[in-house]
Amino acid sequence: MQEITAEPGQGAYVIGPYNEPVATVTPGEKVVIETMDAFENRITSPDDDITQIITLPFVNPLTGPIYVEGAEKGDTLAVTIHDIEVTRNYGVSALIPDFGGLCGTVFTRTLQPALPAKVMIHPINDGHITFSEDLPIAAIPYEPFYGTIGTAPEIEAISSLAPGFHGGNMDAADVCPGNTVFLPVNVPGALFHVGDGHAAQGDAEVCGVATEIPTRGTFTFEVIKGSVIGTPRVDSDEFIMAIGSARPMEDAARIAFYELIMWLEADYGIDRLVAYQLCSQVARVRLANMVDILYSVVAKFPKKYLPTR
Amino acid sequence: MQEITAEPGQGAYVIGPYNEPVATVTPGEKVVIETMDAFENRITSPDDDITQIITLPFVNPLTGPIYVEGAEKGDTLAVTIHDIEVTRNYGVSALIPDFGGLCGTVFTRTLQPALPAKVMIHPINDGHITFSEDLPIAAIPYEPFYGTIGTAPEIEAISSLAPGFHGGNMDAADVCPGNTVFLPVNVPGALFHVGDGHAAQGDAEVCGVATEIPTRGTFTFEVIKGSVIGTPRVDSDEFIMAIGSARPMEDAARIAFYELIMWLEADYGIDRLVAYQLCSQVARVRLANMVDILYSVVAKFPKKYLPTR
Amino acid sequence: MQEITAEPGQGAYVIGPYNEPVATVTPGEKVVIETMDAFENRITSPDDDITQIITLPFVNPLTGPIYVEGAEKGDTLAVTIHDIEVTRNYGVSALIPDFGGLCGTVFTRTLQPALPAKVMIHPINDGHITFSEDLPIAAIPYEPFYGTIGTAPEIEAISSLAPGFHGGNMDAADVCPGNTVFLPVNVPGALFHVGDGHAAQGDAEVCGVATEIPTRGTFTFEVIKGSVIGTPRVDSDEFIMAIGSARPMEDAARIAFYELIMWLEADYGIDRLVAYQLCSQVARVRLANMVDILYSVVAKFPKKYLPTR
Amino acid sequence: MQEITAEPGQGAYVIGPYNEPVATVTPGEKVVIETMDAFENRITSPDDDITQIITLPFVNPLTGPIYVEGAEKGDTLAVTIHDIEVTRNYGVSALIPDFGGLCGTVFTRTLQPALPAKVMIHPINDGHITFSEDLPIAAIPYEPFYGTIGTAPEIEAISSLAPGFHGGNMDAADVCPGNTVFLPVNVPGALFHVGDGHAAQGDAEVCGVATEIPTRGTFTFEVIKGSVIGTPRVDSDEFIMAIGSARPMEDAARIAFYELIMWLEADYGIDRLVAYQLCSQVARVRLANMVDILYSVVAKFPKKYLPTR
Repeated sequence: MQEITAEPGQGAYVIGPYNEPVATVTPGEKVVIETMDAFENRITSPDDDITQIITLPFVNPLTGPIYVEGAEKGDTLAVTIHDIEVTRNYGVSALIPDFGGLCGTVFTRTLQPALPAKVMIHPINDGHITFSEDLPIAAIPYEPFYGTIGTAPEIEAISSLAPGFHGGNMDAADVCPGNTVFLPVNVPGALFHVGDGHAAQGDAEVCGVATEIPTRGTFTFEVIKGSVIGTPRVDSDEFIMAIGSARPMEDAARIAFYELIMWLEADYGIDRLVAYQLCSQVARVRLANMVDILYSVVAKFPKKYLPTR
Repeated sequence: MQEITAEPGQGAYVIGPYNEPVATVTPGEKVVIETMDAFENRITSPDDDITQIITLPFVNPLTGPIYVEGAEKGDTLAVTIHDIEVTRNYGVSALIPDFGGLCGTVFTRTLQPALPAKVMIHPINDGHITFSEDLPIAAIPYEPFYGTIGTAPEIEAISSLAPGFHGGNMDAADVCPGNTVFLPVNVPGALFHVGDGHAAQGDAEVCGVATEIPTRGTFTFEVIKGSVIGTPRVDSDEFIMAIGSARPMEDAARIAFYELIMWLEADYGIDRLVAYQLCSQVARVRLANMVDILYSVVAKFPKKYLPTR
Repeated sequence: MQEITAEPGQGAYVIGPYNEPVATVTPGEKVVIETMDAFENRITSPDDDITQIITLPFVNPLTGPIYVEGAEKGDTLAVTIHDIEVTRNYGVSALIPDFGGLCGTVFTRTLQPALPAKVMIHPINDGHITFSEDLPIAAIPYEPFYGTIGTAPEIEAISSLAPGFHGGNMDAADVCPGNTVFLPVNVPGALFHVGDGHAAQGDAEVCGVATEIPTRGTFTFEVIKGSVIGTPRVDSDEFIMAIGSARPMEDAARIAFYELIMWLEADYGIDRLVAYQLCSQVARVRLANMVDILYSVVAKFPKKYLPTR
Repeated sequence: MQEITAEPGQGAYVIGPYNEPVATVTPGEKVVIETMDAFENRITSPDDDITQIITLPFVNPLTGPIYVEGAEKGDTLAVTIHDIEVTRNYGVSALIPDFGGLCGTVFTRTLQPALPAKVMIHPINDGHITFSEDLPIAAIPYEPFYGTIGTAPEIEAISSLAPGFHGGNMDAADVCPGNTVFLPVNVPGALFHVGDGHAAQGDAEVCGVATEIPTRGTFTFEVIKGSVIGTPRVDSDEFIMAIGSARPMEDAARIAFYELIMWLEADYGIDRLVAYQLCSQVARVRLANMVDILYSVVAKFPKKYLPTR
């Protein structure tokens, strides 16, 4: 089985067409991909000064570009995640000044003093995460996913910190083992990137950081020829989903629902206005992030309500 | 048991201090409250023309004001919902021109032609809802809640269509049987209002209308003296929750998380910055509505992670 | 000439149909209206503690309701401002914690500490304002206008701090002597309110407070029968204007431009899509406020480009 | 005098570090730069079908990258525009489906049908623009500026349609002859790009398109060593200005005012909180665009209120 490694200094900090592929994969082939954590695995202690470790724009290193054979502009790349293994016995979270959902940022500028920096180390053992030795709360289950997954735009190189129509840093917990993620193909080989493993994350990722981990993930890729999607989609046992990323947050929700409704019309024969009215009764929504360069919202349609034909 | 009825022509279309109370209740007393549906029970057929039936601002009639004995400014009203019974064998949903999550509105003005009006009648039997005879999908379970619940502001009279710090039209499915809703008291007697029963609703209520029903609900009220909350809160078996309503949607999420974190600090002794970082790992979020005058977001903290003391 | 006075303790803190009129005016009659400043004239020294003086919701007292004879639902009220005289030799501005354009607020909640409170007294003499004795800058010209002007909604009572379709706290410097403001009539007599005099204000009113003054203004009212507008309009020598108030700010701009374009079509015969394309070449915009409960944007069409017929 | 030409097929559609410089300039040297219009000069008739001519992402071709000698990361590039000459006797504007301020877009998704496409040709003669032969309105003065001007980010390649901290497609009419624009330097040589000439534009550019022209502009570049700015700045005879680009629009305004206030503190010795309160009295704002990938707002401080020292 092909293994694609991740080494400090080798990560991609943009998703775009300009970096050379680090590997080539064949559709159907099972592939192991390593990823570094969002801080390039450089935080090892609660005493680390995150403001020194982070130097923009070199945050959130991705593994990639990975060239998928046969993928061409106008196709869709289907990425199935089989497994995500954490390769360290702890996760890291942090408070980062001028970053997060409840403080001023470089976009929502305020004149108030910033919140303090803080690093926490969260031990991970036997599928459980200890949030803090100092706070007596139940262990958090290990429920890993990739915060960042995407394919290259045609000519743009987008920061690994940003989500968008190409995927990217959506921080959607539905990008997890067992699910298939659909991404657009804009360039030959699709140029797939992945990283930002999370052992756990709350909806919204409110402080801006999840339980960040390095990983070894197992993937399969398929190329759906001549199929164009408008924004990333996800398929799970329970839901079909579309992910919108935008600001303000309502636009992220609009993109997600629009794509979901177009999907219901095109593939399941439900007229778009009927699908609109039906989603208003049965859809589920995940607020994936309220902290990134764009916010991400997942609109989810329960498969149990798909038409029986 | 006191029963407070709801009659066409008698509903309140604002939540404020200016209407005379329709009833007085005693804390601890079990009370039955009837509510009309959001269209004053006036839609009976898919052929009804909703653009004729709706005349702003007379939409979404509420039952109230209900005077709660002993409630004074600076208190919090705790409303426990025991049961919500539908009093008709169908629910109604609709497409309403210039209203909804995926079209221009009076706020998000567009020059495009409006979407068409449409009414659907959804039969309800034995705890199941039939979305449409024409679309072969599984029945939707009857999972009722109140879309609108609130107490009077001190001097404002707020449209029954709007949510806010006073509660109102939040369309949060957590306002359901088994849960307790906490609302601010700004005037003597709190002046409680409730209505907008939903037999089912998708997160976001994307087309703007749920499965609208008239109800008979059973409630108990308690007054928590000298306790001020910043925005409505909800307590369930599984979660403590805070509901933020604002535009843009990210501000709704900020209000909800801020209140949740202040609650975790004040009542559970978790330092606010630790609570912020913890919520980033374990919180859940419901997007309650993306269609009302303000959007509503519910930030939820799982009780299983509350500190054991 | 009728004079309508403003006394501390007598101001209206909501714009709605529930307060008794303080005066009645006849269309065409010249009327003098006094207004208090936004702090009820209670700040007299830079040492005043504004956090003690302000007690929500009792901020921004308005003079009103003023009953305009003959006005009925479905009409438009045209208010011409002839003159605004300051009735004190100073204006007041302030920093108010958790309020303003560059800090967390009750809507844009942050966990950072609030900015400090601060009061400044700005002497006004001979048509000039001294910003500060400590900062050697040129005098600011006295260019007065009313921050708040509006008519009662049909059933809502809206905080005097909020702008909206009814007018209200728009903080638009175009509401000034020489101009005519058009407001909707929703109730008998229109129930006009005015206040929040500003001796000067920057676009956006970025810290949340202008040079606040008490005034004596001279007005004339006209009732345009059977004419419905969608949002407040203003007519000046140079521009026809529409004011949108909403959040996020782009929705305020959308409302303003939509109304301006509908006006150009209805009254000047320019097809709406041509007007849209024309505004894209010649319109001007004022950002009136970025600090109030809703943001306000003024879309302005230069009269010199109106069709010659 | 060096002349840098612009040819169809040679334009840059991203601003980034990956394209080879098309020219090198020396600080202080006067340079002529040609630019194509936003449609690559391909529209010549009102009968042209803009939906066929536009193929995303190949819209808004820029001239560049231009390498400025001596510029290094951490410097600021000062670009003075001396003159903008239109090189054709007409401008072009258009309605583009799913693009503009008053319709659904790829971000603000709606289910309504799109507005129609439309092209207008606007003759330009003797400094005057004729909007339409069919609409008898006054000529619009030729007041040219560059809609797009920017320098390369360190690792991102940003669409020429997007504004941001690097400048880009801000559509700010203050980027005009006589003014100096300050841009960040993130890479050796700064890699300057310019294009999107406008003969006239309304504030907000509400339909999404201005009077688009190809140009010959005259520029001088200076490098300010070791000077970091947070967002583009502009200096004119009358104002110092900062341009914020973000969504929602209030964040664009926050960025602009924050930068302006930091500038007033750093270079003019006005304490930031005093500057905040002063801007609230005297600042001016231009809404540059409400249609691009990010909205742009210009915060302007009148030089007449700068401290006299």
